Amino acid sequence: MIIYAEILNTRDTMVLKTLFLNCTIKKSPKVSHTRGLCDDIAKVYEKEHGVQCDFVRVVDYTVPSGLKSDMGDGDEWPMILKKIKKSDIIIVGTPIWIGNISSVAQRVFERLEGTYSEGNKGNGQYPLYNKVGGAVVTGTEDGGHFCAKTINFCLYRFGCTIPPGADCYWVGPAGPGPSYLDAEGSKHLYTNRTKRTLVENTVFMANLLKKNKITTNLLEVEEKAVAESRGSNEVEWRSLK
Amino acid sequence: MIIYAEILNTRDTMVLKTLFLNCTIKKSPKVSHTRGLCDDIAKVYEKEHGVQCDFVRVVDYTVPSGLKSDMGDGDEWPMILKKIKKSDIIIVGTPIWIGNISSVAQRVFERLEGTYSEGNKGNGQYPLYNKVGGAVVTGTEDGGHFCAKTINFCLYRFGCTIPPGADCYWVGPAGPGPSYLDAEGSKHLYTNRTKRTLVENTVFMANLLKKNKITTNLLEVEEKAVAESRGSNEVEWRSLK
Amino acid sequence: MIIYAEILNTRDTMVLKTLFLNCTIKKSPKVSHTRGLCDDIAKVYEKEHGVQCDFVRVVDYTVPSGLKSDMGDGDEWPMILKKIKKSDIIIVGTPIWIGNISSVAQRVFERLEGTYSEGNKGNGQYPLYNKVGGAVVTGTEDGGHFCAKTINFCLYRFGCTIPPGADCYWVGPAGPGPSYLDAEGSKHLYTNRTKRTLVENTVFMANLLKKNKITTNLLEVEEKAVAESRGSNEVEWRSLK
Amino acid sequence: MIIYAEILNTRDTMVLKTLFLNCTIKKSPKVSHTRGLCDDIAKVYEKEHGVQCDFVRVVDYTVPSGLKSDMGDGDEWPMILKKIKKSDIIIVGTPIWIGNISSVAQRVFERLEGTYSEGNKGNGQYPLYNKVGGAVVTGTEDGGHFCAKTINFCLYRFGCTIPPGADCYWVGPAGPGPSYLDAEGSKHLYTNRTKRTLVENTVFMANLLKKNKITTNLLEVEEKAVAESRGSNEVEWRSLK
Repeated sequence: MIIYAEILNTRDTMVLKTLFLNCTIKKSPKVSHTRGLCDDIAKVYEKEHGVQCDFVRVVDYTVPSGLKSDMGDGDEWPMILKKIKKSDIIIVGTPIWIGNISSVAQRVFERLEGTYSEGNKGNGQYPLYNKVGGAVVTGTEDGGHFCAKTINFCLYRFGCTIPPGADCYWVGPAGPGPSYLDAEGSKHLYTNRTKRTLVENTVFMANLLKKNKITTNLLEVEEKAVAESRGSNEVEWRSLK
Repeated sequence: MIIYAEILNTRDTMVLKTLFLNCTIKKSPKVSHTRGLCDDIAKVYEKEHGVQCDFVRVVDYTVPSGLKSDMGDGDEWPMILKKIKKSDIIIVGTPIWIGNISSVAQRVFERLEGTYSEGNKGNGQYPLYNKVGGAVVTGTEDGGHFCAKTINFCLYRFGCTIPPGADCYWVGPAGPGPSYLDAEGSKHLYTNRTKRTLVENTVFMANLLKKNKITTNLLEVEEKAVAESRGSNEVEWRSLK
Repeated sequence: MIIYAEILNTRDTMVLKTLFLNCTIKKSPKVSHTRGLCDDIAKVYEKEHGVQCDFVRVVDYTVPSGLKSDMGDGDEWPMILKKIKKSDIIIVGTPIWIGNISSVAQRVFERLEGTYSEGNKGNGQYPLYNKVGGAVVTGTEDGGHFCAKTINFCLYRFGCTIPPGADCYWVGPAGPGPSYLDAEGSKHLYTNRTKRTLVENTVFMANLLKKNKITTNLLEVEEKAVAESRGSNEVEWRSLK
Repeated sequence: MIIYAEILNTRDTMVLKTLFLNCTIKKSPKVSHTRGLCDDIAKVYEKEHGVQCDFVRVVDYTVPSGLKSDMGDGDEWPMILKKIKKSDIIIVGTPIWIGNISSVAQRVFERLEGTYSEGNKGNGQYPLYNKVGGAVVTGTEDGGHFCAKTINFCLYRFGCTIPPGADCYWVGPAGPGPSYLDAEGSKHLYTNRTKRTLVENTVFMANLLKKNKITTNLLEVEEKAVAESRGSNEVEWRSLK
């Protein structure tokens, strides 16, 4: 197929990079089951697609709350953000606590708010544009859908594209029970199916976007939106600031 | 219009089709504010991108509950599903009720479950693969994020790709108040900004996917997943069925 | 049973009534796993607390979309609402579809919106005040927390009180699998623990509220709120209507 | 003040205590709009009901991630938990970030997991039993329902009772805009209505529970649940531990 061949040719040096943001609430060297599932996914990225995988266990770093990309005072988020910006695929991995993403994952999204103000000067696109997003979730039970939903929502709002099947999760039956590694989750069919679908589709989409950058000009979007919104509260509010 | 002509030239017969599934709970001919916002979005699709827009007000049809693509007995879902399959961009529009998507929108997603069993014989892809999804939400107040999150989660699970900024919503301040059309929502800057971002990014992605179909083979994914999951509960359960 | 007799003695004719609104999407006579779990819960209500249990399988009735308590044209919601009003404990049972409550459950909440305009003339309390709410959720996998959260949120907004542990759910591990009855869910410890906690706490609270009606006067609340909100958008909007 | 005096008479020494856990992500002395709304609510508690109000701005303390009630190493959560245990009404206040509760609020709920293992020796009830919960949410726009839902779900799972109308929120219209204090949110009718309903109903319920402790014996619940769950995965898993 012509297009495919063309992709292969021009891709040579185009080795994809996947960054796993592991949002476990447990610091190293404690076992992270979320990391366990991320590892299983990374194997498929690496062995079957030659994708370079990198991991950041966010809780091991000093990431204070705040909405700017650098909060100063030993803030280590800038280093993490740098890795995010260099990646083609961003996978946010979270354990489930009380049915929600972890406080560490929520912190990551709060900090990503800072990227809204780092728009490209030419087209206004935020730094996560042209990247591909996905979600990985583990819990002893229940909450995979909701956490995946929350993660991918945040990611597409920051600029990522979410391909089909962009989540992979493992949970056991209702109530307390063993976690991913203890339960031999890597033998669980559903998790393996979603793991492979996640990898295939994020790799396809990342390759596609690497060759075909999104052409949307957010500065023009803004200009047109402002023009048709005269008298809007927000227009007034912005003019006051 | 120059941009439009240029698109027609370079994209030949590839005129895109957007389908709006309006999930208002009010039957015609009552005013639907969700339709109002969809209309404003359709204008941008049509005038600035030459996209053909079609609307289905789901509540006007007989769509019984169930999980198959045809429940018989006067079920009109098959006609709606046909339109969905012919579209390149699928926009689900919902009003907000008690912070959730409408019962009509939830019904749509339940019925789309039937498409999981209509995988392509060659590669197993569900019918919504290679389509682009997006969400439109209106309410007198609060719930835009949650409803957008829910809609786009469902859509990417059924096969759609979700590009950056794939939602547009309008809500007023906390509590009861006028709805979109009565409040002149079409002058609201934020809504117009997200409206235009939604259109630009869905058009870009739909054109890209029209020329570059996703190559993932879900049958191979399944085969590999089963192979590495011997002894899994689900494998056992499936063998019992 | 001693406890039961004691309740009957001290609480006279106060036999409690629990209504289960089963929001399965499958019509009778198909097997409803949600009903299966409701039955197990009802046994505890009846045998250990002498509570009268009633069931409504909402999908078997004509319940059109809409926001009024009677939409006319064969609407059977008024009959269901009557049962709700006569109950002390309201349990909404839902299956999980794509991580959300069923379209039937969402329809129930949309229709309950009508009760906001049926405030008591003396104190403005909605018809569900002084009742106790709870959630029952079943799915082949994942979503119990989110559905419980959604149900109990709606219920407390309509006037119910939500006691501790007011939800009971059963789900299997991630992915497709057998449903509650097929999986012998009634032997699942976590589900049985939450089942019994739900029953004990709703019975306690219902008895308490039966003897101690909430004294809040919503008409006075409104008066004071309006007085301190002069110039508010909503005040203006209401005066225009 | 008459109402207050009357309460003191009929309720003796039962002065209620409300604790506001302000989960802003901004450290003191920055302005917290969530605190602004909490202050307005506290005024009603204090002036109209003689309730003692206390505030904890969680982000000002060292609250590391973890699931135990004391993580050591300068962990200040034990001090906060002590205040929680002494309160009758617990109000969790959160700003909205990307449609979710703040990372600080999520951290609070993660830390409250530790209370599950602090059950009363006599009846197994967790420390938050017999307390009343409620939610306060502020944002420049959208997300009030979802955050309230999440907060009250967590609270009733930890043992709190959630009375009708147990949330109060303020949000502006869709998109960026001024926050609560800047927008004169304290003149917003809906917010004032929910503020007063929240206060009235939590005070009523807290007084009721102060005089009528929940009688549920969770140890007996457990015993019965285990007895009817022989062979359950969880029973097996627990026996292995």
